Amino acid sequence: MNETVSLLMKHRSIRKFTSDPVSQEQLATIVGAGQMASSSSNVQAYSVIAVTDQGLKSQLAELAGGQAYVAECPVFLVWCADLYRLKQASAPYIGDKASYEDSVENFTVATIDAALASQNAAIAAEAMGLGVVYIGGIRSRIQEVSELLGLPELVYPAFGMCVGVPDQEPGTRPRLPLAAVLHMNGYDKEETVQQVKLYDETMVNYLSERTGGQRTTSWSEIMATRLTEPVRLHMKPFLEAKGFMKQ
Amino acid sequence: MNETVSLLMKHRSIRKFTSDPVSQEQLATIVGAGQMASSSSNVQAYSVIAVTDQGLKSQLAELAGGQAYVAECPVFLVWCADLYRLKQASAPYIGDKASYEDSVENFTVATIDAALASQNAAIAAEAMGLGVVYIGGIRSRIQEVSELLGLPELVYPAFGMCVGVPDQEPGTRPRLPLAAVLHMNGYDKEETVQQVKLYDETMVNYLSERTGGQRTTSWSEIMATRLTEPVRLHMKPFLEAKGFMKQ
Repeated sequence: MNETVSLLMKHRSIRKFTSDPVSQEQLATIVGAGQMASSSSNVQAYSVIAVTDQGLKSQLAELAGGQAYVAECPVFLVWCADLYRLKQASAPYIGDKASYEDSVENFTVATIDAALASQNAAIAAEAMGLGVVYIGGIRSRIQEVSELLGLPELVYPAFGMCVGVPDQEPGTRPRLPLAAVLHMNGYDKEETVQQVKLYDETMVNYLSERTGGQRTTSWSEIMATRLTEPVRLHMKPFLEAKGFMKQ
Repeated sequence: MNETVSLLMKHRSIRKFTSDPVSQEQLATIVGAGQMASSSSNVQAYSVIAVTDQGLKSQLAELAGGQAYVAECPVFLVWCADLYRLKQASAPYIGDKASYEDSVENFTVATIDAALASQNAAIAAEAMGLGVVYIGGIRSRIQEVSELLGLPELVYPAFGMCVGVPDQEPGTRPRLPLAAVLHMNGYDKEETVQQVKLYDETMVNYLSERTGGQRTTSWSEIMATRLTEPVRLHMKPFLEAKGFMKQ
């Protein structure tokens, strides 16, 4: 198999890092690779805040729900959907015409742009022997995270990413069967749900092995717990207050 | 530079394909690599519809605004944010408890999951010598696209992706300067807007060279045109009708 595909197949999240730094040159390569991802109509509607300041990282670790690795990694990247730059750059040409940066369409575009860039960056980091973990937890106290990083209107922190030299080897986690996510020429409702049953078995065995039999909850049951928790219901009012998704 | 980083840096969108097919094995590798991307709390809230049927591809090309390459590529992938599978799988455990699949948080999670998987898939395809182009145009008539592909509630087509053997070599497009998107330890409003001025010059020269001097519009001005067009304002009511982002 080719080297890049092989790298993609080996991805695992790293939550323990050595004290080795990530150099400014490595950071430039990582974010530069992120920039080469596709962008909707070339809007490039994202920004990334590289947090290296120890005090800031510690505060973000706390705001993310007490995730120590956010403080411990040498660089914590905060990937933001960013329509602010677009709005500012085009303002002289817009004048007093109506503009639509507050549409759900543009919110979606900016969120996707940020995610595509971040994934390229993650792969570049891994290709250089570094490890990463995505941190959705920064959305738990998103208002405070935004204030801490000085994010203006039309910018929101979509997720964070710890980057550093791995100090653990956790191995890959099984994914849903291919047939659960890949549909040919139309969505197959029955197949996708059938395949979940196979995955439930896989994950029960995987969890059981990893915990010496202590955890045997199926994926479906874990997902039910997740769906029934009122997680981050502040997102809608927060995003609207930031100027997003009003129409 | 390492092989994978070098591949990432060479990305360009391909809009002309040879008649060579993409094999089922290649498709499995591409989507399998997509599956290895990170997923928020392992929800894997995305699906991909691989469209190989010529009639369907032609209809999608039309619905995407008459983009011929959607019909001409051997495989058109429709990447969907998918909370349907999650809801169905967990339903037996949820019973009559309240659940929050309709939150903006879960909409965001599913959209990011779809984008991360798609970007891994794009890189796998390119690593195998194939070319891709993302197609946001499928959101222009998103209701009809959804019906054509039989997408159930809590599934929306976020974007498409043409995949095939490149029959052109368009070269890479210049991106914003690194300093426009990368901020150290906090958002720098002035720097990001200053950097756009440099990019405007770069893009005027780039466009001018490619069009023999016929197009010299700056990026900022192109962005102003884009922001002032009421593009896809149906997204909000469409997504709400599909069960997304009600709270």
